[in-house]
Amino acid sequence: MLVLGIDLGGTKLALALFDSGGSILKKESVALGSRSGKEVGKLITEKVSEFRKHVSLQGDMIGATGISVPGIFHIGSGKVWAPNIPGWEDYPLMDEMKKTFPDIHVTIDSDRACCMSGEVWKGNAENCQNAVFLAVGTGIGAGILVNGEILRGSHDIAGAIGWMALNRPFEHKYINCGCFEYYASGEGIARVAREILEREIDYTGELRNINPEEISSYDVFSAYQYQDPVAVQVISLCVDYWGMAVANLVSLFNPEKIILGGGIFGPAIQLIPAIREEAFKWAQPVSINQVTIQQSGLGGEAAVYGAAYLALKSILKDR
Amino acid sequence: MLVLGIDLGGTKLALALFDSGGSILKKESVALGSRSGKEVGKLITEKVSEFRKHVSLQGDMIGATGISVPGIFHIGSGKVWAPNIPGWEDYPLMDEMKKTFPDIHVTIDSDRACCMSGEVWKGNAENCQNAVFLAVGTGIGAGILVNGEILRGSHDIAGAIGWMALNRPFEHKYINCGCFEYYASGEGIARVAREILEREIDYTGELRNINPEEISSYDVFSAYQYQDPVAVQVISLCVDYWGMAVANLVSLFNPEKIILGGGIFGPAIQLIPAIREEAFKWAQPVSINQVTIQQSGLGGEAAVYGAAYLALKSILKDR
Repeated sequence: MLVLGIDLGGTKLALALFDSGGSILKKESVALGSRSGKEVGKLITEKVSEFRKHVSLQGDMIGATGISVPGIFHIGSGKVWAPNIPGWEDYPLMDEMKKTFPDIHVTIDSDRACCMSGEVWKGNAENCQNAVFLAVGTGIGAGILVNGEILRGSHDIAGAIGWMALNRPFEHKYINCGCFEYYASGEGIARVAREILEREIDYTGELRNINPEEISSYDVFSAYQYQDPVAVQVISLCVDYWGMAVANLVSLFNPEKIILGGGIFGPAIQLIPAIREEAFKWAQPVSINQVTIQQSGLGGEAAVYGAAYLALKSILKDR
Repeated sequence: MLVLGIDLGGTKLALALFDSGGSILKKESVALGSRSGKEVGKLITEKVSEFRKHVSLQGDMIGATGISVPGIFHIGSGKVWAPNIPGWEDYPLMDEMKKTFPDIHVTIDSDRACCMSGEVWKGNAENCQNAVFLAVGTGIGAGILVNGEILRGSHDIAGAIGWMALNRPFEHKYINCGCFEYYASGEGIARVAREILEREIDYTGELRNINPEEISSYDVFSAYQYQDPVAVQVISLCVDYWGMAVANLVSLFNPEKIILGGGIFGPAIQLIPAIREEAFKWAQPVSINQVTIQQSGLGGEAAVYGAAYLALKSILKDR
C-alpha cells in the first residue's frame, strides 16, 4: 500500500508518493496560477486521479492520502480556511475528497501541523513525543506535538504563535497580525527595515537603493551577509524575538525538540546559535537544558512528508 | 469506595475524604510547623492511616488517594521536588506511600496540575477538554489541560509560565524567577511596590508607613482599594502582564477556559474584567472570542479536589 502526501501552498501544489517506509517514489509540483475556489479543489482531485492511475498501472494502490493546507482545518465540518487562496474561506475539501475518492482514506491538517509531523517521521524530531515546529515564513505559526499528538485546541486553531505578546505596552500596529509576527516574520523583517530606513536618514547603504515598498526579507538577509548596519539592527531584533518565543515554548511545553523551519530558516539557520543563547536567558533553566533547538531536517518538503505520515497513522489507527 | 485527596502545601497539609460523586465527607488541616524531610512524609502517612481507620470503622474503605505537591512530581522515579519543604529536593514519596499502603492506589501530581483537575471535576472548568489554570501565589505556574489530560512535557515540568518572556530586552533581575513572575506574582507585587517607593520620593501615602522590607502583596491590594497612587501603578502593571499571559495561553492552546486562581485571585478577582480587556488586545482574535476567563470555582480547595479526582480517574482507568 502506498501513501500520497499533498502540500497545498498559497502559490503551488506539491505531491509526493511514499511507500509505507517513507521513501518517495514519485513527486510533482504545479503552480496554482490564477486558480481560485473550486478550481483549486479540481486541481487537487485531478492530480490525485493521475497518481492513482500511475500507481494502478504498476499493480499497486494508494491506500491513504494526506493534505496539508495553508491555514486551518476544521476537523468537525471537514472545511478549510485558507486566507491566501481566494474562495477558500470555508472550503469543503474533505467532502469533495470523500465523494471523488470513496476508496481512499483522506486526512487533512494545517501546514504547521503537517510540518511538525513530517519532522517526527523523517526529519529532526524523529521519535519525539513532545516537540514544536516554529514555522517562520511570510507569517508565523507553530505545529505543537503533545504526547505524540498534534495540539488542536478547542476549535482547531491552537499554535497561533504569531500573536504572542512579547513587548509591552500594546501598540496599535500589532492589531492585524500580532506582536511576534509584526517584528519577526518574513513580512515583519521587511516592515522593520522600512521603519528603520525612514528614521536613519544618514544611512547610505545597500538597502537605500531599493524602493522601500519593494524591500523583502531576502534583501535584508543579503545585506546582513556583509554586516550592513540597518540589516544588522533588523536581524538582531528578530533574534531577540525568536529567542523569547523559543524560551516561552520551552517553559510552557518542556519539549524534547524545537525545530525552526519555514522560508526564513532558510537564511536564518546561521542565527540558531544566537537564538539559543537568547532563549537561555529567559527560559525555565532546567527545561532549556532538556531541549534541542534545530533547523528543519526536511526543509521545503516537511509538509508533504507530514501530510503522508498523518494519513498513514490515521489508516493504521482505524484498522 | 472512597477517595482521599491530600494537598501538601509549603506550610500545611490538608486532607479531604470524598465519595466517588465528589462530595466531601470529612476534612482536616494541620500545620507543618518545623517539620522537614522524612517528618513531612511521616505526617502524611500518619494522617492517611487515621483516615483509613475512621473509614474502616464505618464499614467502608479508601480505594485511592491523590496527593498534590508544591513543586514537581517526576512520574518515572516517583520522586518529588518541593523547594519550600526542607529535604524535599528529591523525596521518594511514591515509594513511601506504596510501601506503607500497598492496598491503596496512589496518585501524585503538582499543585498546578491538581488545581486544574479540581476545576474540571467540581469547579469552573467542568467537562472542559482544553483549559488552563493560571496559579498566581507567591510564585506563578500553570496547570494545562490538553484533550482532557494534564500536559506534562518531556520531563514533567511543563507549565512553568512564571518564566514567560513578556518584555524585552532581558534584564539580569529576571534570572532567579523569570520575567512574568518577577513582576506579577505575589512576591513580584511587593517587589515592584518597593522599587516604585524608592523612586517616588515625594509620595507620602499609606505604603510609606510600612517598613519596605515588610511590604506584602496584601498591603498593596489594601492600598489599592482607596486608589493609592503607588498601589495603582503596581496593580496596573500586573494587569498588563496577566493580560499578556492570558493572551499567550489563548493564542497557543485555543482553550475553552482560563481559570485565574492561587492566593492573589483572591483580591485580584475584581481585576478580571480589566485582564480580559488587556488579553483581547493581544490574542489571536478568533481564539480569544472562544475562551471564557474566570476565577477559580473552588478557591483554596482546588488542589485537594483535583488530587482526589486524579486518583479516582487513575483507578478507573486501571480497572
